Amino acid sequence: MGLQGQSIIGYARGSNTGTALNAFNPATGEALAPNFYSSSKDDAQRAIRLATESFFSYAALAPSRRAAFLRTIAQNLDALGEALVERAVSETGLTPVRIRNERERTCSQLRFFSDMIEEGSWLDARIDHADPARTPSPRPDLRSMQRPLGPTAVFCASNFPLAFSVAGGDTASALAAGNPVIVLAHYSHPGTAELAGTAIRDAAQKHELPEGVFSLLFDAGHEMAQMLVSHPQIRAGGFTGSRAGGTALLNAANVRPEPIPFYAEMSSVNPVFVLPGALQQQVDAIAKDLHASATLGIGQFCTKPGIVVLSGDGGNFVAKFTELIAQTSPGILLNRNILSAYRREISERPAKTQARIASTGSAVKGGPENQCAAQATLFETDGATWLSDPRLQDEVFGPSVLIVHAKNRAELLHIASELKGNLTATILGREEELREYAELAALLEQKVGRVLFNGFPTGVEVCEAMVHGGPYPATSDGRSTSVGGRAILRFTRPVCYQNFPDSALPPELQEANPRNILRLEDGRYVRRAEKAG
Amino acid sequence: MGLQGQSIIGYARGSNTGTALNAFNPATGEALAPNFYSSSKDDAQRAIRLATESFFSYAALAPSRRAAFLRTIAQNLDALGEALVERAVSETGLTPVRIRNERERTCSQLRFFSDMIEEGSWLDARIDHADPARTPSPRPDLRSMQRPLGPTAVFCASNFPLAFSVAGGDTASALAAGNPVIVLAHYSHPGTAELAGTAIRDAAQKHELPEGVFSLLFDAGHEMAQMLVSHPQIRAGGFTGSRAGGTALLNAANVRPEPIPFYAEMSSVNPVFVLPGALQQQVDAIAKDLHASATLGIGQFCTKPGIVVLSGDGGNFVAKFTELIAQTSPGILLNRNILSAYRREISERPAKTQARIASTGSAVKGGPENQCAAQATLFETDGATWLSDPRLQDEVFGPSVLIVHAKNRAELLHIASELKGNLTATILGREEELREYAELAALLEQKVGRVLFNGFPTGVEVCEAMVHGGPYPATSDGRSTSVGGRAILRFTRPVCYQNFPDSALPPELQEANPRNILRLEDGRYVRRAEKAG
Repeated sequence: MGLQGQSIIGYARGSNTGTALNAFNPATGEALAPNFYSSSKDDAQRAIRLATESFFSYAALAPSRRAAFLRTIAQNLDALGEALVERAVSETGLTPVRIRNERERTCSQLRFFSDMIEEGSWLDARIDHADPARTPSPRPDLRSMQRPLGPTAVFCASNFPLAFSVAGGDTASALAAGNPVIVLAHYSHPGTAELAGTAIRDAAQKHELPEGVFSLLFDAGHEMAQMLVSHPQIRAGGFTGSRAGGTALLNAANVRPEPIPFYAEMSSVNPVFVLPGALQQQVDAIAKDLHASATLGIGQFCTKPGIVVLSGDGGNFVAKFTELIAQTSPGILLNRNILSAYRREISERPAKTQARIASTGSAVKGGPENQCAAQATLFETDGATWLSDPRLQDEVFGPSVLIVHAKNRAELLHIASELKGNLTATILGREEELREYAELAALLEQKVGRVLFNGFPTGVEVCEAMVHGGPYPATSDGRSTSVGGRAILRFTRPVCYQNFPDSALPPELQEANPRNILRLEDGRYVRRAEKAG
Repeated sequence: MGLQGQSIIGYARGSNTGTALNAFNPATGEALAPNFYSSSKDDAQRAIRLATESFFSYAALAPSRRAAFLRTIAQNLDALGEALVERAVSETGLTPVRIRNERERTCSQLRFFSDMIEEGSWLDARIDHADPARTPSPRPDLRSMQRPLGPTAVFCASNFPLAFSVAGGDTASALAAGNPVIVLAHYSHPGTAELAGTAIRDAAQKHELPEGVFSLLFDAGHEMAQMLVSHPQIRAGGFTGSRAGGTALLNAANVRPEPIPFYAEMSSVNPVFVLPGALQQQVDAIAKDLHASATLGIGQFCTKPGIVVLSGDGGNFVAKFTELIAQTSPGILLNRNILSAYRREISERPAKTQARIASTGSAVKGGPENQCAAQATLFETDGATWLSDPRLQDEVFGPSVLIVHAKNRAELLHIASELKGNLTATILGREEELREYAELAALLEQKVGRVLFNGFPTGVEVCEAMVHGGPYPATSDGRSTSVGGRAILRFTRPVCYQNFPDSALPPELQEANPRNILRLEDGRYVRRAEKAG
């Protein structure tokens, strides 16, 4: 596959003198060739300098050219074929089917943003024409639209080696909006990172983009992440990972002499509220679907339903779900750190909290040394206990679920009101019950970015309406989404031009509306065609 | 006028036992009756509890009712007539004309948001319909729109007793978006605050809104501000004031167990770049207009042009501007703290930096004891000195301007590239020069929220296209604006509903589009009418 193990700095390669970094196959426990080298400070400085130098010309590039660039990235990712799938599988323990789906989603995300920037209305262009006759003072001509922020640092996620990594959502939205991107690879899938990074670099070269629009760094430790987020030329950041990691980088972004927007997606337990009506009718189906959602990707989805709140004893549902957990085979977790964190949390939870283990999946036995196999675990507790212990809101990353028995409707609502921020919340019930539980829906809406009815939270559609975000600690900024049409706005801000000559304005704000985008002109949403008509 | 000097907590009054707080007339130096009382902790707790309890019903209120509420506030402010003008003049030293204009602007801002929320398209409603036939998995129905954040704390500005205070921009946008508001009055105009607060409370009562939608607190110290921004039930904040004050509150918002969005508008020097062409033709006019802009409101506008960068010696412009400054009468600053800060900065600047005093206005003499009169001051320095001393980028709040002589085009661009974040930047020149200086415009765009050509930055229009914001340290969040149509978005976040029954959705997301707002449906911007056609 020709992996070189060195950073990609613009159109060149970085040094091969930094601390070595090896990928491990979590299914076999074996180290994977080649060695990767942590980027040097010089590598990072060069990447930042090139990104800074490329910013103005990249931001000024015609959207059609940026769109073509993103489409070529998708094409290059596809062209990597099974080599990419094999490498990602060997570095993550995820299945080939899952990796192929994830690539499909990563590429469709890139194409989605390509279409969006070619269409152009996302820019929120607004024009208020001058009124020279106004008294006491004439009204100036004012025009505004979204503009890119500048060089953006993207930090890869362990659990989505493609869709939330090198060529993933944050990279796609930052590049689409006109920002150069510097990616820091995740230490546990550097080979996948290099392949995806090469796909981006090749696309940039093919389209003759300024060098520095994209760079890829490696690091065996945490210094590079801190350095990137603290660097004065880095203007924004995006991160998907643990709460500890996200908080550390968020703090670094906030204490800079000039704080920058920093989007960290950190942790979520995605509570599912099962109303009485659901339990009267569809116990088996709900148990089966919920189990499938909770164990998808070995429970390593950001949207894994980690807490299930039941009205009362939950009747047959608990028995059925317990049985399904007991039948669950061990799964391969992404890497050793995640395995040891999972084991620690599972073993400490019963001692630290009052939650009891209700069921465990098949035990891990045999298997190669250093294999990252984990056993599914079901915890159970009552509403009062859950309400008294905020630690029971902490995410357990991996195949584990907590069932909470609310003793009545009031306690169920109390639980909802005490929830911290999450990415999603789900209500399972009969349609008529939604009226009776309108307060529940209103409460949950305050806590999450997406509320589901009779569905399961894993599976995040890439589309205009998606919101993949939520209040702290789900993310560092609940006003933003990392997936969907609005994600392109996270690396932009509005800029207003007052009394600018037409020719000095960006095309999207020129009077003739040459790109024919939807604009808000003097209070009316119009395109060129409608104005003429 | 019936001022009572007590907090407004929902529909009741707060305690009268807290530390006393008096307004002073900065023109006469006299204390103004009545005494105001700092709100007690109990007052604040009650305001927060009422705000929290009112949130769900206020957020669910029909937009037409929220719009009527905002219009009644405007009506009540107008109905306060000259009593409001007199009180504001006596508390701020600003002129009656200025206060009348500011009320006009405050009211038109409230009416502007009323129109916006009745129209409804600002909600950014998006619908992606389900596709049950999709393989490998069916696509769910996804609908999203902006939703309010919750109880919002607003901190009043000294320099805009109406437009950036109790019934000002942040209050208007928070209320318009569906958030209850708790305002902390500015200590230097508590009477104006009480009058405006009564106008809001009366409007809320008239429309039978839930008690707690609005409260007004007073504080002689800083504790209440810290308490508000740190309180778990406060979900967002807006502040206009000094960099020190804004930074302290921003830090408090960031170190909460759950950080919240906090918008601080803090300081700006609003650089003006005078290109050679401008100086060849219109020296007198530019000097006159720039002087008028810099001394408007005694130099206490957030958008005051504080730094003027000239190509070369600036020829006759400097002589003319120096003369105008010398002819400037002393002006009354807002309060004693602002006067002493101004005096300190003016007296320390020549010693601390290499900038020299080029001209001063008429000296302050005579006048009543404790009068807050200030003398205009013009500083001058060269580009190299300015570039070597970041303190010369600090705002001097009051009637002071710094002229910077750039030795050539390269140094002028270097100055632009070293600028910190500002609200505005202005280019004065001939239209043809904008091509030659395209790099300057591109640089300035990165530093500010609004770039002006051949205009002056004071005077912020309330309209859809306005951006009144900018990168740090102009504001704490350059992605937002405190004025204009987009300001309503600062106290909202997107929420997505998956597979919700139509009747359980907000009207704006229901299939029939009963409010006929512009929505993004399956990738197309449509209203109901267009779909039918």
